[in-house]
Amino acid sequence: MRQSMCQRGASCHNITSCSVCVCVCVSQLKMSADSNPRALHEQLRAQGDAVREIKAQKGSKAEVDAAVQLLLKLKADYKQLTGQDYQAGRPPPDAVMNDEDHDEDDGDDQVDPWNVSTSSAKGVDYDKLIVRFGSSKIDQELVDRIARLTGKTPHRFLRRGIFFSHRDMHQILDAFEKQKSFYLYTGRGPSSEAMHVGHLIPFIFTKWLQDVFDVPLVIQMTDDEKYLWKDLSLEDCHRYAVENARDIIACGFDLDKTFLFSDLEYMGASPSFYRNVVKVQKHVTFNQVKGIFGFTDSDCIGKISFPAIQAAPSFSNSFPQIFGDRNDVQCLIPCAIDQDPYFRMTRDVAPRIGYLKPALLHSTFFPALQGAQTKMSASDANSSIFLTDTPKQIKNKVNKHAFSGGKDTVEEHRKFGGNPDVDVSFMYLTFFLDDDEQLEKIRQDYRSGALLTGELKKCLIETLQPMIAAHQERRKLVTDETVRQFMTPRKLRFNC
Amino acid sequence: MRQSMCQRGASCHNITSCSVCVCVCVSQLKMSADSNPRALHEQLRAQGDAVREIKAQKGSKAEVDAAVQLLLKLKADYKQLTGQDYQAGRPPPDAVMNDEDHDEDDGDDQVDPWNVSTSSAKGVDYDKLIVRFGSSKIDQELVDRIARLTGKTPHRFLRRGIFFSHRDMHQILDAFEKQKSFYLYTGRGPSSEAMHVGHLIPFIFTKWLQDVFDVPLVIQMTDDEKYLWKDLSLEDCHRYAVENARDIIACGFDLDKTFLFSDLEYMGASPSFYRNVVKVQKHVTFNQVKGIFGFTDSDCIGKISFPAIQAAPSFSNSFPQIFGDRNDVQCLIPCAIDQDPYFRMTRDVAPRIGYLKPALLHSTFFPALQGAQTKMSASDANSSIFLTDTPKQIKNKVNKHAFSGGKDTVEEHRKFGGNPDVDVSFMYLTFFLDDDEQLEKIRQDYRSGALLTGELKKCLIETLQPMIAAHQERRKLVTDETVRQFMTPRKLRFNC
Repeated sequence: MRQSMCQRGASCHNITSCSVCVCVCVSQLKMSADSNPRALHEQLRAQGDAVREIKAQKGSKAEVDAAVQLLLKLKADYKQLTGQDYQAGRPPPDAVMNDEDHDEDDGDDQVDPWNVSTSSAKGVDYDKLIVRFGSSKIDQELVDRIARLTGKTPHRFLRRGIFFSHRDMHQILDAFEKQKSFYLYTGRGPSSEAMHVGHLIPFIFTKWLQDVFDVPLVIQMTDDEKYLWKDLSLEDCHRYAVENARDIIACGFDLDKTFLFSDLEYMGASPSFYRNVVKVQKHVTFNQVKGIFGFTDSDCIGKISFPAIQAAPSFSNSFPQIFGDRNDVQCLIPCAIDQDPYFRMTRDVAPRIGYLKPALLHSTFFPALQGAQTKMSASDANSSIFLTDTPKQIKNKVNKHAFSGGKDTVEEHRKFGGNPDVDVSFMYLTFFLDDDEQLEKIRQDYRSGALLTGELKKCLIETLQPMIAAHQERRKLVTDETVRQFMTPRKLRFNC
Repeated sequence: MRQSMCQRGASCHNITSCSVCVCVCVSQLKMSADSNPRALHEQLRAQGDAVREIKAQKGSKAEVDAAVQLLLKLKADYKQLTGQDYQAGRPPPDAVMNDEDHDEDDGDDQVDPWNVSTSSAKGVDYDKLIVRFGSSKIDQELVDRIARLTGKTPHRFLRRGIFFSHRDMHQILDAFEKQKSFYLYTGRGPSSEAMHVGHLIPFIFTKWLQDVFDVPLVIQMTDDEKYLWKDLSLEDCHRYAVENARDIIACGFDLDKTFLFSDLEYMGASPSFYRNVVKVQKHVTFNQVKGIFGFTDSDCIGKISFPAIQAAPSFSNSFPQIFGDRNDVQCLIPCAIDQDPYFRMTRDVAPRIGYLKPALLHSTFFPALQGAQTKMSASDANSSIFLTDTPKQIKNKVNKHAFSGGKDTVEEHRKFGGNPDVDVSFMYLTFFLDDDEQLEKIRQDYRSGALLTGELKKCLIETLQPMIAAHQERRKLVTDETVRQFMTPRKLRFNC
């Protein structure tokens, strides 16, 4: 299976389940979690590397001592957990599920480095993903804390578990409580002019975070990555980046607090950015990216080194125009869970090059109209609602293609009720209908059979049509000059 | 043997035989030459790729036709040469020497991707290298043609076979005859502040080429590469680049025709340069760089992708400030033969991304004071003459350390004569004493025994002392402002 190559490439940063955005890495799945011997073994290996690195770089005695102390503590933990001494190169027998166990446990779920798919119409089991990724669940306590600190109602994506997992979010909030600010980083791999509603999820949420925390934001358009992975010209990739930028800007980002950049432009416009790329590239081996991303010897050297380019914006001194030479402004990355491997790698490298680990907020995947167990296809216009769709197209697509959890006949539906958990129209409403009470009523009425599939679809159509129309209106107002302003490296408003 | 890693890294571009500058690639040795079936097979493979690439990029019918015609011609040549039809993936039996043959033929010569060393005090057998690299010898006809076209006496490096091999130099001259100009590209990997006389060879020759052909020149300082390969900080590598730039500028380059850049600066200052890096990175696989440079899975991803950064300056549109968006200005690269693998790779990629192949002029290695079969060591100050040496240091080093071809006693020397072919002082004079007659007289007198070793060393000392002193004087005049001017991306004088 490792022979086949990830079609997605890299940094969509979005939460769709289209064929280019569904990679989740098995190596990731098997790592981390303090109580996992394998993860601890991996952490020990990394810490051993770190000690050697610090010594090689002739770090101060204090630095070496601190790194060695951590190494010794991890060794003690390892012995306590496994009853055995740590031996480099000899990981413990797999204490977490192996692939066979996994298949057994999750029925027909397929979770490997290139696919997240499931036979369950409810979609992927995200609680299990959290355990396997070793990330933390966004629980009610965290949601409440965000509400308390910002004084705002949490975004529906938080209220409804659409952003469901995090790394170090409490650390961000601890610092925020002490008036220490942070910055946001998200992005998109622009593989075509057309974006669909699923692509908007991270941007809608990031805009909310920017508003409630009043922090700067950098948005990376990985046009270089799309050129490396796809059969497209550099010019087309860059054009898509600029076209997609219009849709992103139309989400309402604050020009004073947002820098949007294309790799093909910014890499050649910022020595500081390139320096961080090279630093990451020095500290990641082919073996590592092979393990994380499944690269093979037949892959081009551009793909192999690309992960460093997605890592670099996680470090504040990649943007001297915003942060000067400060490398201590922490980064928070809202992204789909499939992007986690990139940032696991980044978090592994960060302390070794003297930087802070970025924190993360992970979202679930956005389902295709045909159902949560199928993939959206960029080439299939009927697999999602595009930002360019007319009201009529929206209506037709929802009516014709949205997988229904209703019964075959009106009579049966009235009698037995529908199943909102597998109904794509209901899922979409979960993403886009902000009114909790209304959503809950729809859920109950659909389940009881009081609400028919056609009526549920009508709700969705009436939610999507004005939303898309408003987006199109805002997009029209995004002039070439606006795009140029957002994409110009410059000072941003930053209170820190 | 492929387990060990090249210590040199990459782009010294110089012609010393120090431990960091002696890689010659076996895969290179076995390729090319029109009459070599393997090379032709390789060329066919590349042309097949080119046809597919042009089709994928939706090239015009004319482009596709031209590429297919060349493919058919190559197939016909292949059949004529081998008597067999070309079959993709089935190279012909190796018609050139294999490693065992090679060891047998060259006695104790060691030529592998990481070392060129020899047990012969005369140094490497360069005629054999030409055959194996599939490059062309710089013969008298070519030297005469350069003299005729430029109206200048050929440089002593040409007269004496120090630049001994080339690729496509006649093509450069054909175009030059038709008033079509070209540009020069050379470089240096700045691994320390100290440069020795051997490091100057490519720059002395490049300056001469710039003067007699009146062409622009770009000089790449690969500080990023040194960071990736060496245990040095980014800041130190960049500082070495600027310090080395002073010595290079002191060679007398024309500010109006020379752009000198550090990768760490220029990569972040030129989207055009980065675009060409990405183009090359898309068209080279890990398998290819593994074969050419001997990278392993344990190498960092920065090393693996670096060859593209050394390739990019071979394409004129990497420098829009000089050439606008023209990609049809051919590049001529004077460099040491150990750098050929980088440019073989570049020449393989060029037509596939619609660019011209760079032409090359290859120099021999510069011997260590201790003899042509040993290596210069950057950490051993006595292995060469440094550009910072005082007259006294020069005298002492030559007298104490320069390997002598003389006899053990004056009596024996007078009777049997010395051997200039293995005498390092004589070799150094070949590099630095411009007067042909005087050099020939020294050779004859030394061979006959009329000239003693001490006298020969005195000649060298008296040649080096004023040369180094003059260099130091010129270097003093190179101010920070001068360096800044040379390193500022800008328009150059270019008649084309």
